[in-house]
Amino acid sequence: MGGKKIYEPGALFPHIRVPHRQIDLHPTADEPPVVVYDPSGPYTEDAPAIDIARGLGRHREAWLARRGDVERVADPRQVKPEDNGGASGAHLAPAFDDSARPVWRAREGRPATQLDYARAGIITEEMEYVAIRENLRRAALRESAGSEGAQVASDRVASGSAERDGEPFGAVIPDFVTPEFVRDEVARGRAVIPANINHPELEPCIIGRNFLVKINANIGNSAVLSHVADEVDKMVWATRWGADTVMDLSTGRNIHNIRDWIVRNAPVPIGTVPIYQALEKVGGVAEDLNWDVFRDTLIEQAEQGVDYFTIHAGVRLPFVPMTAKRVTGIVSRGGSIMAKWCLAHHRESFLYENFAEICEIMRAYDVTFSLGDGLRPGSIADANDEAQFAELRTLGELTKVAWDHGCQVMIEGPGHVPMHKIKANMDEQLKHCGEAPFYTLGPLTTDIAPGYDHITSAIGAAMIGWFGTAMLCYVTPKEHLGLPDRDDVKTGVITYKLAAHAADLAKGHPAARLHDDALSRARFEFRWEDQFNLGLDPETARSFHDETLPKDAHKTAHFCSMCGPKFCSMKISQDIRDAAAAQNDAGGSLEEAEKGMQEMAEKFRAGGGEIEVKV
Amino acid sequence: MGGKKIYEPGALFPHIRVPHRQIDLHPTADEPPVVVYDPSGPYTEDAPAIDIARGLGRHREAWLARRGDVERVADPRQVKPEDNGGASGAHLAPAFDDSARPVWRAREGRPATQLDYARAGIITEEMEYVAIRENLRRAALRESAGSEGAQVASDRVASGSAERDGEPFGAVIPDFVTPEFVRDEVARGRAVIPANINHPELEPCIIGRNFLVKINANIGNSAVLSHVADEVDKMVWATRWGADTVMDLSTGRNIHNIRDWIVRNAPVPIGTVPIYQALEKVGGVAEDLNWDVFRDTLIEQAEQGVDYFTIHAGVRLPFVPMTAKRVTGIVSRGGSIMAKWCLAHHRESFLYENFAEICEIMRAYDVTFSLGDGLRPGSIADANDEAQFAELRTLGELTKVAWDHGCQVMIEGPGHVPMHKIKANMDEQLKHCGEAPFYTLGPLTTDIAPGYDHITSAIGAAMIGWFGTAMLCYVTPKEHLGLPDRDDVKTGVITYKLAAHAADLAKGHPAARLHDDALSRARFEFRWEDQFNLGLDPETARSFHDETLPKDAHKTAHFCSMCGPKFCSMKISQDIRDAAAAQNDAGGSLEEAEKGMQEMAEKFRAGGGEIEVKV
Repeated sequence: MGGKKIYEPGALFPHIRVPHRQIDLHPTADEPPVVVYDPSGPYTEDAPAIDIARGLGRHREAWLARRGDVERVADPRQVKPEDNGGASGAHLAPAFDDSARPVWRAREGRPATQLDYARAGIITEEMEYVAIRENLRRAALRESAGSEGAQVASDRVASGSAERDGEPFGAVIPDFVTPEFVRDEVARGRAVIPANINHPELEPCIIGRNFLVKINANIGNSAVLSHVADEVDKMVWATRWGADTVMDLSTGRNIHNIRDWIVRNAPVPIGTVPIYQALEKVGGVAEDLNWDVFRDTLIEQAEQGVDYFTIHAGVRLPFVPMTAKRVTGIVSRGGSIMAKWCLAHHRESFLYENFAEICEIMRAYDVTFSLGDGLRPGSIADANDEAQFAELRTLGELTKVAWDHGCQVMIEGPGHVPMHKIKANMDEQLKHCGEAPFYTLGPLTTDIAPGYDHITSAIGAAMIGWFGTAMLCYVTPKEHLGLPDRDDVKTGVITYKLAAHAADLAKGHPAARLHDDALSRARFEFRWEDQFNLGLDPETARSFHDETLPKDAHKTAHFCSMCGPKFCSMKISQDIRDAAAAQNDAGGSLEEAEKGMQEMAEKFRAGGGEIEVKV
Repeated sequence: MGGKKIYEPGALFPHIRVPHRQIDLHPTADEPPVVVYDPSGPYTEDAPAIDIARGLGRHREAWLARRGDVERVADPRQVKPEDNGGASGAHLAPAFDDSARPVWRAREGRPATQLDYARAGIITEEMEYVAIRENLRRAALRESAGSEGAQVASDRVASGSAERDGEPFGAVIPDFVTPEFVRDEVARGRAVIPANINHPELEPCIIGRNFLVKINANIGNSAVLSHVADEVDKMVWATRWGADTVMDLSTGRNIHNIRDWIVRNAPVPIGTVPIYQALEKVGGVAEDLNWDVFRDTLIEQAEQGVDYFTIHAGVRLPFVPMTAKRVTGIVSRGGSIMAKWCLAHHRESFLYENFAEICEIMRAYDVTFSLGDGLRPGSIADANDEAQFAELRTLGELTKVAWDHGCQVMIEGPGHVPMHKIKANMDEQLKHCGEAPFYTLGPLTTDIAPGYDHITSAIGAAMIGWFGTAMLCYVTPKEHLGLPDRDDVKTGVITYKLAAHAADLAKGHPAARLHDDALSRARFEFRWEDQFNLGLDPETARSFHDETLPKDAHKTAHFCSMCGPKFCSMKISQDIRDAAAAQNDAGGSLEEAEKGMQEMAEKFRAGGGEIEVKV
């Protein structure tokens, strides 16, 4: 994105530094800058001091110390060969030197999670941080607007007083987010702040229906491809373009070491699916999975600092036969592993049976649940079927158990769903899961476009985001075909950023339209550089423009190559407006405006009236 | 697209040859082929005999001759220098040798348009052609299914008997389209078959709410760029990927000659915006436009064979001041030209005042109206405003006038609209325009992603298509930035094909889901080549797959590089299903299925149960 990184201090906690991205506009605009959400961390500072071998600064350690509710784990779990799939020698990815980092867990009898604090009426640093982050400096920008033009523009910023334009479907988005509002939403379970106490490098973000819609990018190697450095790079790259969280879906060897490098360098919450690593530990044989190896993996990853775990505890034995007649069976990796386990042993899932203990572990580190939808549909044909909704109801039941243990919870959702069946997913989720944040993969609205599933799914993602989904998991163009590369990650992230923003707009989020309107004004006024910088991908927009009009002079030209100078409607429109404005206040009554335009018409005729073309 | 071109004869008119694309599946699938819509004309035959200097075959001449309702124009309009913007010498694009082509117009007192025929109860060749085209050989495929497996698959094809799955919002889509249904829909004005009698090369298509959603691709040079051959190539290229109609939006010099090359080689309906050429004829000075030059241009283009004209007759003088307070003013090129003319002369639009005569001209050649939305919003801020809806109501009024003259009519729609305001556009259009087909540009659902507006708009296009829009005008990645090139055209077309298909699915169109289900089965069964061929862009899907797994053996591998062999949920899911099927009919009751699975569980344990990986 364009613009520059700025930091805003807290009011309750002056030592917190909340990042934003500020896009200054051309002086002729006479408008305040536009501030946008920036999850990219220190990497996008002007002169970042980055050393990925050391990791990012551990600023949250001071927050934890102040609260005094955590204690150092005396004997942290040691890395075992199976954590990296038995890789050795040249096949073993280098370990991150993590020796200086203390490992924390909650002290007995003290609040451990953001949910615990929220319920106790305590506002944490994380809560003020996300409150400031969500507001995008709108209040400050309104006050700072100096000139008359800027005042006009800032009126648009002062959305608190403007009529709300949107259909929120029951979401209740405040004009400005206060730390107390955050606390209340977290206490109700309606929002989560995934923030493992062992991820002190984190810049917290909030995920909930009454906040800006967030997006997740998946990275991770598969057994076939990918390397350590590539994955760290993909994480940084994904956040640079706007990923709010990143899931490391690595499988195969070296996944412990790869994850260490990712977490230590991640400014965003990191999610994982622990069953993947557990499966590696038992040699890839689903039937050999057991509670002990899974439990060990939870602790391993919780101590590393993973912020949320996908747990497929809703894949229950009785639901597996419901998938037998499906066109595409079970398409969740975790779901299929657990289904196979249940079937092979003809036993109830050990995740379901040990759910309370899973809660205990996750609470001790404040790892947020992302209750996995292991039975999500993998095709239009299977959408909204019995298996899917049976699992969803179970996730609702588990949500209450997790809440009882003080754990934060999100619920994962589909998948592949035609447009007319999308809303039912949101409605059922709200009905059964107590308004815990919904976190969906797309959904894809048709199956016929492999290679373009970022788009088939962006359609569904925008819609379900509008209906109330709190976070959208991206889909890249490589979905169904292969492992995404760097370009695919960027395309996926930007596609989902625009879908999430379209959802915010439709919900009537008071921060959303400022961005669109600023860009539209830049477009109308031919401020090309402002238009590029305000876009989600200035580089691409600039390069597209420059393909046909590369000269510097064209950056101020009142046309582009799409229509050429004579046919530029915006140019003609401005001519009309300028002339009208010179005559009269065209913003008055229709009659007055018409009068002004009539006078203008006479003047036009007198002057020959040709459209002036400046090149 | 994959597959091969096939032709189906008519029943009423055995001499018509209706094209489809048939995708044969791998023998292991034991399924009938999938037949998809194919607007690409003879270019995609196995061994096409193409000579663009001669143009395509004029198969519709025989249809016109049989009906005997047209007469040869004795003195067709001759090309004038101003038709090509005064270009001469090396600057003049070569003329298409059109001397052998008779120019037709309707005979006095005889039916002239498809609407005239339909109202008279007459089924034309065009009507049977589009009826056959819409059915995609579903009835034949059902009958031809031989083996048991194919019978099962064909049951899915027999959607006529299946329960309809969709929300059509008042659309009434029949199980199978008959010529009589087409006639009735055309007679009601609820569908159009744009088919100028001077475009005998045309393969007719139907546009209406109760038919498959269509897409349009814009091509055309601007004064800045582009050349004759490039534009013909873009037309062929756009239809190859699925464009149902093509608009030639050329401006600048040579537009008469460019258009001749395009129409003579176009299997799809060609649309234009005649005001663009009229403006060129008066030296680009909007104020100098007049009825005579516009009238002359209509006849010129009607005699060339343009199938539909965008006419911005709804931009009335009193509406212009309504745009004064907009963020982006008037963004339609035609709209801004007419607004400027109205203002400069302070007179009502000459298009509005001469609308009846426009109807007379268009009726004589059966040129379909596309009533232009000259005041469509150009930004989220301006969506659904007074100017836009005032114009829409006028378009409704003009629709009735055009219908009274026997003309076919479509209505153009926006533009830039946030998701929560899209449905109102469709509702207002249905309310005021008598169900005349709606034809929208996107709409874009956010302004913040220049370079990605094919996606911001595909979201809105899919939604408004679902709500009832009959044709979606594509937007390319270059929108707002420059003239699209060949790659942009392809990206735009495929993006809109998937959006239109998502809309068909959500409406519950009985032909839609067959395609998705066939692809999903191919995906689940690891028939990689079938998956590629069934996709909208087999080349891209194949190349994405091959980036990481290039070997031929990988085309039958039961995994891809996304998850690798051990974590392939579809593989695991098949293992589960195969084992269950061997034991029991898993499709029976839950109890039976569970029993089968329990037996399977025992067997799994006995056999070691490891997932078998075939590479």
